[in-house]
Amino acid sequence: MNSPLAPHSITEDIDLLIRPEWIIPIEPAGVTLTGHALAVNRGNIHALLPNDEALQHFRPKKTLDLPGQVLMPGLVNLHTHAAMSLLRGYADDLPLMRWLSERIWPAESKYAGPEFVRAGTLLACAEMLRGGVTTFNDMYFFPDAAATAARQVGMRAALGIVVVEFPTAYAADAGDYLAKGLAARDALGADPLVSFCLAPHAPYTVADKTFNQIATLSAQLEIPIHVHLHETRHEIEESLKQHGVRPLERLHRLGLLGPQLIAVHAVHLDASEIDLLAHEACHLAHCPTSNLKLGSGIPPMASIQAHGINFGLGTDGAASNNRLDLFQEMRHAALLGKGQSENAEALDAHAILHAATLGGARALGLEERIGSLLPGKAADLCAVRLDEWLIQPCFDPASHLVYVAGREQVSHTWVAGNLRMCNGDPLQINVSELLDIAGLWHNRLTS
Amino acid sequence: MNSPLAPHSITEDIDLLIRPEWIIPIEPAGVTLTGHALAVNRGNIHALLPNDEALQHFRPKKTLDLPGQVLMPGLVNLHTHAAMSLLRGYADDLPLMRWLSERIWPAESKYAGPEFVRAGTLLACAEMLRGGVTTFNDMYFFPDAAATAARQVGMRAALGIVVVEFPTAYAADAGDYLAKGLAARDALGADPLVSFCLAPHAPYTVADKTFNQIATLSAQLEIPIHVHLHETRHEIEESLKQHGVRPLERLHRLGLLGPQLIAVHAVHLDASEIDLLAHEACHLAHCPTSNLKLGSGIPPMASIQAHGINFGLGTDGAASNNRLDLFQEMRHAALLGKGQSENAEALDAHAILHAATLGGARALGLEERIGSLLPGKAADLCAVRLDEWLIQPCFDPASHLVYVAGREQVSHTWVAGNLRMCNGDPLQINVSELLDIAGLWHNRLTS
Repeated sequence: MNSPLAPHSITEDIDLLIRPEWIIPIEPAGVTLTGHALAVNRGNIHALLPNDEALQHFRPKKTLDLPGQVLMPGLVNLHTHAAMSLLRGYADDLPLMRWLSERIWPAESKYAGPEFVRAGTLLACAEMLRGGVTTFNDMYFFPDAAATAARQVGMRAALGIVVVEFPTAYAADAGDYLAKGLAARDALGADPLVSFCLAPHAPYTVADKTFNQIATLSAQLEIPIHVHLHETRHEIEESLKQHGVRPLERLHRLGLLGPQLIAVHAVHLDASEIDLLAHEACHLAHCPTSNLKLGSGIPPMASIQAHGINFGLGTDGAASNNRLDLFQEMRHAALLGKGQSENAEALDAHAILHAATLGGARALGLEERIGSLLPGKAADLCAVRLDEWLIQPCFDPASHLVYVAGREQVSHTWVAGNLRMCNGDPLQINVSELLDIAGLWHNRLTS
Repeated sequence: MNSPLAPHSITEDIDLLIRPEWIIPIEPAGVTLTGHALAVNRGNIHALLPNDEALQHFRPKKTLDLPGQVLMPGLVNLHTHAAMSLLRGYADDLPLMRWLSERIWPAESKYAGPEFVRAGTLLACAEMLRGGVTTFNDMYFFPDAAATAARQVGMRAALGIVVVEFPTAYAADAGDYLAKGLAARDALGADPLVSFCLAPHAPYTVADKTFNQIATLSAQLEIPIHVHLHETRHEIEESLKQHGVRPLERLHRLGLLGPQLIAVHAVHLDASEIDLLAHEACHLAHCPTSNLKLGSGIPPMASIQAHGINFGLGTDGAASNNRLDLFQEMRHAALLGKGQSENAEALDAHAILHAATLGGARALGLEERIGSLLPGKAADLCAVRLDEWLIQPCFDPASHLVYVAGREQVSHTWVAGNLRMCNGDPLQINVSELLDIAGLWHNRLTS
């Protein structure tokens, strides 16, 4: 299927032919193929076709047989603060506002400069590649430093043009944040692995005037808006006090709603708000682990799914998760959606695999490039071993990916056709360097 | 601390001295020790004391240094159907009653004989040992076959004297189930690694008369009662129709409530029922993954914790989880307890470690033997690597065990002082045998 080839086309040279036990292409939906091969050429998916046809049509420079393994699109982490991997476990068992104001913000104000961001993002990228994540949507200070790290390990990044009203080591005020973020975008715009989102932090840290500017910029530049929204009841209560409306309604009035909006968390939504998000074709970044761990609550994902709202999955930062592990988020999204709705059929395995790949890609405006195994898209891929004794027997690879396997079973991760992780370790950076980075910052943070 | 030694006692021969980076003894509560060693002799914990004292007092046959690792009690899986590992992923994304009646019960009625139980329990035990589980509380047919498997791999088992009213390949009626279970108990009673629970399946599968018999037997034999209870709203509605009361009240009237009762799931509880469980000193087996996956709901664990009710953690069977992984259950219990109560301080890391060890041991009436690192208890232990690059940095080992590490980081598992798992593989059975077992039953189940 999806073969663009006539039956008797001439033998063609390609870079790589991958022959796994199973292929889950995401498009078409709900399909698991056996006996198929994926042809990769010049960084792109060239064809997905039966093994015998592949042997007739292609002369690959390299053939990779993956018995017992499933091949699927690379995972998209739709919301993270990558650099915060250095704060993994720095403050646990605390509610959001205390966690932010007593632990995270003080540490960030003391340490979060460009060196911190580059180091933390390197560690985060290595962790994500290890678990099959090929793209991350980041929101943090010094996106240029984050880009340096992502480019070092060869990972695809959507960087946030982060905006808050208060000064930090990165910028002085909202205008300064925007100017610096836009300058980073100008400097990095030519890198095919880098894209940008406008990233106003949250309704409680960004003023109306700035949101207006961001809406205008998003329309002009045709880039998404990535914002924390309706994460806690407290946020909603404060908005009612200060603005007279709930945050979603405030953003609606300010012109931010539409297919360019990625609403992160969206834990607390009433029925009319779900209708509004569906009507405006907004995207959600569902971060189940973070929502639970910070005691924010449990979003109504079964209802969101039933309304046809597109959603992807995010880890949030490692300080509130504490893993940057999309396999964990897939499992938590599937389980929590069922438990919260008391409907075991909600958020089934294929729906979850879609969210973790094409759902995230679509939210980022990257669905033409990544998120499924359609020929012409970039070869962002991961392969997962389903043949280890520990996870036997396997009746359905899609369900096994969601309910049984873990990131420890990911064997290969490719970004744009380049192998970036194999057998547990990232290929562009030494593990000893990662340990040194973590050790150095652990010492600084505890000194 | 906990050293029973006078300052100048004579040097003593012991079997094993373990010197990890950290020790979490569970008793006393909330403590993480550094610079300490655990002395093991004749299968028991002999002493827990500072490294320098250990060097003075003991002449170990073997010393094991574990830098970067944390040593803790072996985990207790307080509710499983071990043999159902052969049905892992056999039926996903279905609600409990359809899952049971359309998929699980038909497969069991066709296949679940002694060979199935021995094979499935072997696979389950290997999986559990790999993840640091040293004791499991089982509920399944043919407990004698399950015992054969557990004894082969050297694992501690609490076997269920399972009872339902309907006939299966195992027994004809409630009396027959009880007779067969009690005969198995008589035959295996001398094995120090084997104990028994009376295991009436659930309120909807067991009659009043049988529950009465079980209450009497439990008092006579001084063994716990292990029963599914208040798993779904449907169960409660049916009980109201048939018995005029909710299942918990029915069991109360039948004399089953008390410190001998292990109530499994307990998802749907009103405030008076939580009071009743606390007043009667019942124990709960919390199975967060299974409750979510089957759409049963989310139990009020923060309130249960606040009422001082003892609880342990269970995986349930692999057909409804789909992993027998207490690390996963620890994380899910911590996260879900916070998310459900919207209180990030509920079910903190040390409370969760307690539930996964001493909480389970206490429910099984085994708190004198296992569940903490007090001298005199059996040396049921696991060691976990916290030094891998993927999970750096580490600020707090207790929090890292719950929120970051996975079973893939467990390096050693000991049962009664015997090493049963090292570096990922069980030591008493070949991995190839496990793969053969899984392959054979996969083929039978799909033929």
